[in-house]
Amino acid sequence: MRDVYIIGAGTTKFGELWDSSLRELASEAGLKALMDAGIYAEDIDALYGANTSGGQFVDQEQVAALIADYSGISELNIPSIRIEAGSASGGAALLQAFLAVKSGHYETVAVGGVEKMTDVPSEVANEIIGGSLDAEWETFFGATEASLAAMVAKRHEYDTGVKREDYAQFPVIAHKHGSMNETSHFRNVIKIEDVLKAPFVSEPLTVFDTAPISDGASALIISADKKKIKNAEHPLRIKSSTAANDFLSLHDRKSIDRFGAVRKSTKSALELAGLEVGKVDVFEIHDSYSIAGLIQMEEILGKEAIRMTRDGEFYYNSSHPVNVSGGLKAHGNPLGASGVYQAVEAVLQLRGNAGTRQVKNAENIMIHNMGGLGTTSVTSIIGVD
Amino acid sequence: MRDVYIIGAGTTKFGELWDSSLRELASEAGLKALMDAGIYAEDIDALYGANTSGGQFVDQEQVAALIADYSGISELNIPSIRIEAGSASGGAALLQAFLAVKSGHYETVAVGGVEKMTDVPSEVANEIIGGSLDAEWETFFGATEASLAAMVAKRHEYDTGVKREDYAQFPVIAHKHGSMNETSHFRNVIKIEDVLKAPFVSEPLTVFDTAPISDGASALIISADKKKIKNAEHPLRIKSSTAANDFLSLHDRKSIDRFGAVRKSTKSALELAGLEVGKVDVFEIHDSYSIAGLIQMEEILGKEAIRMTRDGEFYYNSSHPVNVSGGLKAHGNPLGASGVYQAVEAVLQLRGNAGTRQVKNAENIMIHNMGGLGTTSVTSIIGVD
Repeated sequence: MRDVYIIGAGTTKFGELWDSSLRELASEAGLKALMDAGIYAEDIDALYGANTSGGQFVDQEQVAALIADYSGISELNIPSIRIEAGSASGGAALLQAFLAVKSGHYETVAVGGVEKMTDVPSEVANEIIGGSLDAEWETFFGATEASLAAMVAKRHEYDTGVKREDYAQFPVIAHKHGSMNETSHFRNVIKIEDVLKAPFVSEPLTVFDTAPISDGASALIISADKKKIKNAEHPLRIKSSTAANDFLSLHDRKSIDRFGAVRKSTKSALELAGLEVGKVDVFEIHDSYSIAGLIQMEEILGKEAIRMTRDGEFYYNSSHPVNVSGGLKAHGNPLGASGVYQAVEAVLQLRGNAGTRQVKNAENIMIHNMGGLGTTSVTSIIGVD
Repeated sequence: MRDVYIIGAGTTKFGELWDSSLRELASEAGLKALMDAGIYAEDIDALYGANTSGGQFVDQEQVAALIADYSGISELNIPSIRIEAGSASGGAALLQAFLAVKSGHYETVAVGGVEKMTDVPSEVANEIIGGSLDAEWETFFGATEASLAAMVAKRHEYDTGVKREDYAQFPVIAHKHGSMNETSHFRNVIKIEDVLKAPFVSEPLTVFDTAPISDGASALIISADKKKIKNAEHPLRIKSSTAANDFLSLHDRKSIDRFGAVRKSTKSALELAGLEVGKVDVFEIHDSYSIAGLIQMEEILGKEAIRMTRDGEFYYNSSHPVNVSGGLKAHGNPLGASGVYQAVEAVLQLRGNAGTRQVKNAENIMIHNMGGLGTTSVTSIIGVD
């Protein structure tokens, strides 16, 4: 099969962006990506839009058509399809775009992820976020994503002997990295005590264990067109992109604190890329909750991940950099955009454009995007060729 | 590129199915499609779920993960992605599945479309349906899809001289065909006077000019696996599948009563299939509104379509059969399922299993699924080889 490259990337700032609408955010990111790729809208064969809950947040479905419209490409009749997989929507859109280009049907495709979450009160936002859980067996009975994550955390402590302080490291790492990223929602550095002493969201998880409610958009241009790849300043190859799913309800799973889909999708992404995990230089993972971040790293690196967390090996200047963007926790989590931003971060790092948080000599980056608590898992590996 | 076949199809009845939940409908259709293909869940590499507004209708996002769960395939970690393109979601899911199989990434894929619309009052349902319009420039100002369709109708009368009675033929044809289909929402035959004298939804359109609010699910199994294709009783080739988009807002378009995206996607579907339009034996189109049905046929066949409508040439036993399933109008319109059911109908017709509404010697069927009023247009051509 032919190779597929990322030839352009763009993002808005993530945060509480009350002055910007869904459509403005999407078109800002889209236009930046087009300009970055050095191409025009006419060069795009299709658009894949990632959005989790536009219908509920801003009464807007058919979001991909809206993005196309406001990016000024509607006149060209470019097919525009929305991809949804809970908060894995961004990664899933990249996967579908990758497959569509690989199939030969399209040469050059735009991937845009966007979510506008702060137009509703936060309790409403949390209800909408709960839409990615099982409505009949979880949310109907009052479960929220945070309360389920808290149960996962308690069970994981019981199963593995991991301590509260261990997974509390994840937000600390994220804020350290996020402080060095100008598009971050949060740029403050925090300490482990800040995480432990903050108000509970659902015991033992505090507000610092959870990613924020954010607005934002990110976009990519991917292509298999040899001329466009040659003209691009820093084309980066998508070495693999793949997905796996688990049961929607936690109670259906054999173990609530293991993410089988994550294990499967990250493993198959490595296989498809022809890489050992040791060859991955940077991991951008889905730290919607601190405990979810830790379990993902365990699924990828094994139990050793717990020790690495404790020993500070996940910082940008250490052996296994994780979430050098600031992650969902500090860079922000506009659901549909988060997975697309992970790829934007990979582009910045692999181009050497990541400023003070630059990882040295990074050649392969794994990005892992997750819907619900391990329900949908999408992994891509992006690298210099 | 390699050929892709539909090897299994299944559907629930469409209608007001108060005793069945979203998940029950989806799994019923999915299991029927698997049994029809003569394969097991283990044989599926991925699932594409079409759903327009699960988040709003039944508080459920990540719908594809839910479908996988209730179809009993979650244990297999099969990737499950939801596709949304307004009421073109079903066609768009088929397109993505087709491209994913064509790319070589997957061999055999399930496509499921489902919508559960009758759990909310009809005024709420109509608001949710409005989510496929432009929230800021249309629905915010009180426009509904029906009122915009009514404007399109008036403009089309003005532009072309077409008469109210002409497009009122579409529901009459649909009900005639739907009366012969046991999975139809409506099985009553109606006359042109019934359409004209029914209560207005938005003048000049009456309730009989509009497709109903329905529950239902449909599913397909598509494959490029030679063994599975050989084992299937009636494999049918997807000769092409393609999409095009138009502006989301009607006011942005050069002409509100022309559907440029429909013209483009139907034309390119023919080109990709290597067929002249004269070789298409049956058209399943998106008659969400009678006027939309007429305009689609004009985009496909030219102005001649108006005369054909008047002369009764769109019946199953005439020269250009249209919506032999009963269409969205009579067979029903559970948004995400409608586009998938169009392919199920193509399968029934091409296998010769369509009972009293069987079109004789059909070899090529065009299915056209639309999001909004011509915003997203997805066309596939399915045929005996």
